[in-house]
Amino acid sequence: MTAHSTSADWLDEVTWNEDGLVAAIAQDASSGRVLMMAWMNRESLQLTVAEGRAVYWSRSRKALWRKGESSGNVQQLRDIALDCDGDTVLLQVQQIGGIACHTGRESCFYRGLDDGHWHSREAVIKDPTALYGDT
Amino acid sequence: MTAHSTSADWLDEVTWNEDGLVAAIAQDASSGRVLMMAWMNRESLQLTVAEGRAVYWSRSRKALWRKGESSGNVQQLRDIALDCDGDTVLLQVQQIGGIACHTGRESCFYRGLDDGHWHSREAVIKDPTALYGDT
Repeated sequence: MTAHSTSADWLDEVTWNEDGLVAAIAQDASSGRVLMMAWMNRESLQLTVAEGRAVYWSRSRKALWRKGESSGNVQQLRDIALDCDGDTVLLQVQQIGGIACHTGRESCFYRGLDDGHWHSREAVIKDPTALYGDT
Repeated sequence: MTAHSTSADWLDEVTWNEDGLVAAIAQDASSGRVLMMAWMNRESLQLTVAEGRAVYWSRSRKALWRKGESSGNVQQLRDIALDCDGDTVLLQVQQIGGIACHTGRESCFYRGLDDGHWHSREAVIKDPTALYGDT
């Protein structure tokens, strides 16, 4: 995956929603595990490709969110794909540190439905206070 | 994955967005391929689990969308997981017919970014007119 062109036509082909965002799914390029789903605005998608690492848009903080900027758990971009209606991108990433979730787990999708209840299925690899500090 | 409980507590644990929807990612349970991303309302998520097949909410048609009802390409549910902030579910599915995309391809994520342009990377398996008819 490269983006040598100076044209931003590829950004214009994205179907931005009413908030100017596109859904972004991150999948571990090696294991195939789906790690998380977040959002990107035009700038963050452009930066993701330009910098070769996942840069999301934090809807709560209304700010660019360079994944791993606090924890070090950067998502290095291996590939990016766009879906048929253009409103979702799929990133293939190498997840540095093996932890994508802010809870300290590999994937954000750690709760499974069993017997009518969501149950945590995977252990915390690293305590969030160790990831982000306790301040 | 089972949901024998008559309680709907598990539905209450989902973080529904302002439109009452949750994002739903479908992943092929065998290959790990991410097939599509769509949306579910409370009823469609409940039906997905109750019927053991993916039932989405069509935002354009404002109607339940039993995946495969026209094409036969049903997504049989193998597992379902909820992410850390509760606003996205990840379905593990068996994709009947091997085609998830309305364009007749396996996955909706068939366009990759190369040299600054989105390029189709996979061929149509079955012509959409054969999937849905040409009316």
